[in-house]
Amino acid sequence: MSDTTRLPVAVDAMGGDRAPGEIVAGAVRARDELGVEVVLVGRPDEIGDTGGLEVIAASEVIAMDADPGRSVRTMKDSSLVRAAEAVRDAKACAMVSAGNTGATMASALLRIKRLPGVGRPAIATPIPCPGAETPTVLLDAGANAECSAEWLVQFAQMGAVYARQRYGIEDPKVGLLSIGEEPTKGTPLVKETHGLLAAGDWAAASGGTFVGNVEGRDVMSPDVDVVVTDGFTGNVVLKTLEGGMRSLVKAILASFDTNDDTRAAGEVLIPALLPLYGQLDPDNTGGALLLGLNGPCIISHGSSSATAIVNAVQVAVEMVDGDLCGAIGRAIRPA
Amino acid sequence: MSDTTRLPVAVDAMGGDRAPGEIVAGAVRARDELGVEVVLVGRPDEIGDTGGLEVIAASEVIAMDADPGRSVRTMKDSSLVRAAEAVRDAKACAMVSAGNTGATMASALLRIKRLPGVGRPAIATPIPCPGAETPTVLLDAGANAECSAEWLVQFAQMGAVYARQRYGIEDPKVGLLSIGEEPTKGTPLVKETHGLLAAGDWAAASGGTFVGNVEGRDVMSPDVDVVVTDGFTGNVVLKTLEGGMRSLVKAILASFDTNDDTRAAGEVLIPALLPLYGQLDPDNTGGALLLGLNGPCIISHGSSSATAIVNAVQVAVEMVDGDLCGAIGRAIRPA
Repeated sequence: MSDTTRLPVAVDAMGGDRAPGEIVAGAVRARDELGVEVVLVGRPDEIGDTGGLEVIAASEVIAMDADPGRSVRTMKDSSLVRAAEAVRDAKACAMVSAGNTGATMASALLRIKRLPGVGRPAIATPIPCPGAETPTVLLDAGANAECSAEWLVQFAQMGAVYARQRYGIEDPKVGLLSIGEEPTKGTPLVKETHGLLAAGDWAAASGGTFVGNVEGRDVMSPDVDVVVTDGFTGNVVLKTLEGGMRSLVKAILASFDTNDDTRAAGEVLIPALLPLYGQLDPDNTGGALLLGLNGPCIISHGSSSATAIVNAVQVAVEMVDGDLCGAIGRAIRPA
Repeated sequence: MSDTTRLPVAVDAMGGDRAPGEIVAGAVRARDELGVEVVLVGRPDEIGDTGGLEVIAASEVIAMDADPGRSVRTMKDSSLVRAAEAVRDAKACAMVSAGNTGATMASALLRIKRLPGVGRPAIATPIPCPGAETPTVLLDAGANAECSAEWLVQFAQMGAVYARQRYGIEDPKVGLLSIGEEPTKGTPLVKETHGLLAAGDWAAASGGTFVGNVEGRDVMSPDVDVVVTDGFTGNVVLKTLEGGMRSLVKAILASFDTNDDTRAAGEVLIPALLPLYGQLDPDNTGGALLLGLNGPCIISHGSSSATAIVNAVQVAVEMVDGDLCGAIGRAIRPA
């Protein structure tokens, strides 16, 4: 299955709560199970046994809680900066990191750089919809705390292209997150964006259909495929759902532990609940994507396991093989 | 138990998806079960049997989807406007409505009016935290799509007073919703508000301790008692949680229905799950409160049952008896 014409995927071996162990194990598994080339980036002595994978040496590591902007400016030999440079210098086709999210964005933005015409890159995060075949793509999930209406329109274009390529949704339904369905609801930014999305020909090259304003309750529903919002609101939504789901699942499992009868009943139900658990497990989503750059950058969650890295590498090669970045470039600035 | 010194609670008989039937039934039950005076507001012929409750006649009804501002300006004989006037004219001590949320706010703001010094009223909504004794108070949950830092500081003051009076939390932990714990994270509004909450003596009269920025994942956790945010973000958070919880519960119940074994196991578990279900049922929260006015205004959810109205009336009299509005007035503008 090895495709010798594709460049390797650069995996930041030092990023994530479980780095380098789980990250390296995931990279090795990705090569073996997916048959794709992977190159590790990081400190060779800490990586240890690479399982035969090549290593791009980088002497510095940006900590999970470091200041993103300053770290990327000052730590030029960090694994994150070197991974982004590998994409820039055509030594890798895409990058994957479970490290500091802000520093991943900053490295990718500064080294891989934006596609022509893109105002700002956006983080596109898949939100699982229980019972539905495909997740909802939420963007921006945190790259830009403040946005202009023009950027939000580009997020709609990028989100539509991504939903089609990643999830096979031919004509994605694109909604604008607000606090009521009426075009008059929301902040001035939302109202201005609504006007542009409703009236404009933004979808001429990207495809996708604007379904109007959507509300928080629609994010986890199959009624909309792409939800567009600013990075502040999007990040709050993402983390609210993560916290709410975790809290509810914990309470339900505690109910299962009430007495011997409920414990026995719980054991019967676990297999029936596994598919749902799998759908909600962030290790299985393949990670978030930073859209709008000259190469795919996958942002895996901080607690990524080896399985999460395998899935992230798979998404990376799918996006490379489908020329996601080219399609986004054409959607933003039609020929 | 009847307290003859307290004015009756005005209940908008025409507001809500299940009005007037469930609303009137709830008002009658509130009188019988709580021993409090209740007055209905609405069309006498549609209300029908009042169970002996007095009725303030109002000939108009503001529809659930009507434009709030215009409706309240033009429908001066609507049940919502008349209910607010009953509070203003000292014919009622508080108002309860399950009707059009925007029109409820507008009626209350225009007729009951703000407490001296209050910039804007805010909707305070209890967010249940599974496993915790008390919910988190989220405000503003939708009254003001755009806010100033000064208003957000007042929301912190009002939220602290409310959390103490309603839930008995002596020194409420107050968090500011952002996208990272660091004071540098978030929008300019959030950063400015962080500075005021961290440095100022805002809590001198309200009580409460600022615990810094919190994230979406903290909203449904017991780590914070009051979460302050603008009405756009707050409303998105509230509806995102509603939708996410509903979606997850539906998927779990579908898993229970997999086969005969899981159905039998599910029946064993239902009693153990009932307390959690009860905690999450919006009929049991007592509704949201519009804080900052000269009298309590309870906003019940649109699908309120009779039980929701009983709980809303109970919250109303608790807030009246504890002089919530007086305490908020002193917190905002200390003597």
